[in-house]
Amino acid sequence: MSEDYTPPRVWTWEQDNGGAFASINRPIAGATHDKELPVGKHPFQLYSLATPNGQKVTILLEELLAAGFSGAEYDAWLIRINEGDQFGSGFVEVNPNSKIPALLDLSGEKPVRVFESGAILLHLAEKFGAFLGAPENRAEMLSWLFWQMGSAPYLGGGFGHFYAYAPYKMQYPIDRFTMEVKRQLDVLDRHLADKPFMVGDSLTIADIAIWPWYGRTVQGGSYDAGEFLDVQSYKNVVRWADEIGARPAVQRGRMVNKAFGEPHEQLHERHDASDFETRTQDKIG
Amino acid sequence: MSEDYTPPRVWTWEQDNGGAFASINRPIAGATHDKELPVGKHPFQLYSLATPNGQKVTILLEELLAAGFSGAEYDAWLIRINEGDQFGSGFVEVNPNSKIPALLDLSGEKPVRVFESGAILLHLAEKFGAFLGAPENRAEMLSWLFWQMGSAPYLGGGFGHFYAYAPYKMQYPIDRFTMEVKRQLDVLDRHLADKPFMVGDSLTIADIAIWPWYGRTVQGGSYDAGEFLDVQSYKNVVRWADEIGARPAVQRGRMVNKAFGEPHEQLHERHDASDFETRTQDKIG
Repeated sequence: MSEDYTPPRVWTWEQDNGGAFASINRPIAGATHDKELPVGKHPFQLYSLATPNGQKVTILLEELLAAGFSGAEYDAWLIRINEGDQFGSGFVEVNPNSKIPALLDLSGEKPVRVFESGAILLHLAEKFGAFLGAPENRAEMLSWLFWQMGSAPYLGGGFGHFYAYAPYKMQYPIDRFTMEVKRQLDVLDRHLADKPFMVGDSLTIADIAIWPWYGRTVQGGSYDAGEFLDVQSYKNVVRWADEIGARPAVQRGRMVNKAFGEPHEQLHERHDASDFETRTQDKIG
Repeated sequence: MSEDYTPPRVWTWEQDNGGAFASINRPIAGATHDKELPVGKHPFQLYSLATPNGQKVTILLEELLAAGFSGAEYDAWLIRINEGDQFGSGFVEVNPNSKIPALLDLSGEKPVRVFESGAILLHLAEKFGAFLGAPENRAEMLSWLFWQMGSAPYLGGGFGHFYAYAPYKMQYPIDRFTMEVKRQLDVLDRHLADKPFMVGDSLTIADIAIWPWYGRTVQGGSYDAGEFLDVQSYKNVVRWADEIGARPAVQRGRMVNKAFGEPHEQLHERHDASDFETRTQDKIG
């Protein structure tokens, strides 16, 4: 239970401290190179990758289109974060935080940038007046939407990193973040015990925010940690996750900007509804 | 760069893995004991502690009152998280996630619970139509509000924990989270280079969300890590932090539900504006 380490008085950047993604982590912000972003023909230009945070937005966009909101048509452009696309000057203009997803909303008089997946969900849901739940449930919906934003860093940046990506296995961080993730799953499990959705009786952006992280985790899809976390014990979350996951729009949304995993699951870019039928990742990848 | 550790197939709870706050971390949710929450006379009942997340809400409430919104009167009740108050049955009913702050809004026909500091800020700001910024800046305001929610876990649960609270010093986690916190500070520093506030030309809930975490960090107030993080190099954040910190309502908000630190900074509960003059923490603490 001890490691012979004393932090320096002032921290300095050692350019490679190991671990997956070490090469794309930096202590400074801003662009590293000039690169404009492509712009397509639709009202919404999405710059993203099919990570859980990316999937939130494409799932909402596909749900909006499936619900008949044709104004939600979008171009989804691939941002390869392991190649540093998020540090291009055009991307940084849309999201100074250099993280996917980032959205350019061209539907109004002036272009509007939106970043952070939670903000994008709320921005789009309010624009179309959809997937917000009943007005009397707004506080509850916002509570769970923000719950996801404040909780998932412990699942992704904490548990996922130390369990799957760090250069070696450290017991203390793994224990710490595992305990928190299991607590979060139990919060959801108790909440969903008598409810079909997170809030009210229909799909909202609270479900859409939570599903790619916690729904996929209980389906065994995150970090190959299903057994380690004993995800089957969270029966209500599993039931909810399977129901959400069976929605065709969710299945489409999961696929957009996917440039990893099985070839038949990949759709590097999406510019038209027909792209799901004529997947040709070869032309891009 | 290696530790001789292999995670088990299925994680199990060892009841004490060390570190400050280890005794209040649990892998299961829900109440541990029956305890009703007190309810005062005002429209808003806040159950909190003056951590950065708690301070966000009391700063907004004090700013609302200072701006003349007398409907924002509130009772602030102390939740001692190191004594497990957040696991009482009454608290869990208001926030099933067992974290401060939690709000009970009694201003409407039915009581409404709101949890997660970001949700509480948005709920209150929308209720009074204040501190939201200009309508044309709403997407930008939401982006920074959600940025804070998704970023601060790396500052608090990541950097702060491993730098200040973990039972021993581990280089890899400290390096990892220090790099991310410095990147976040640089994101803010670049953004604030030519702006008086995070969004537009007036105080919004984006400033109020970010200040208790990042503003206090550059003022040297978080984890005694000012020198380690070289906070003085983030000059624009320091300037912004000092300006926000000088506001009388912010100074009052910082003090509410404070049950640690210097005695003259403490106000365990707040039920009336006059409580700031007649601080009598002795009667409660």
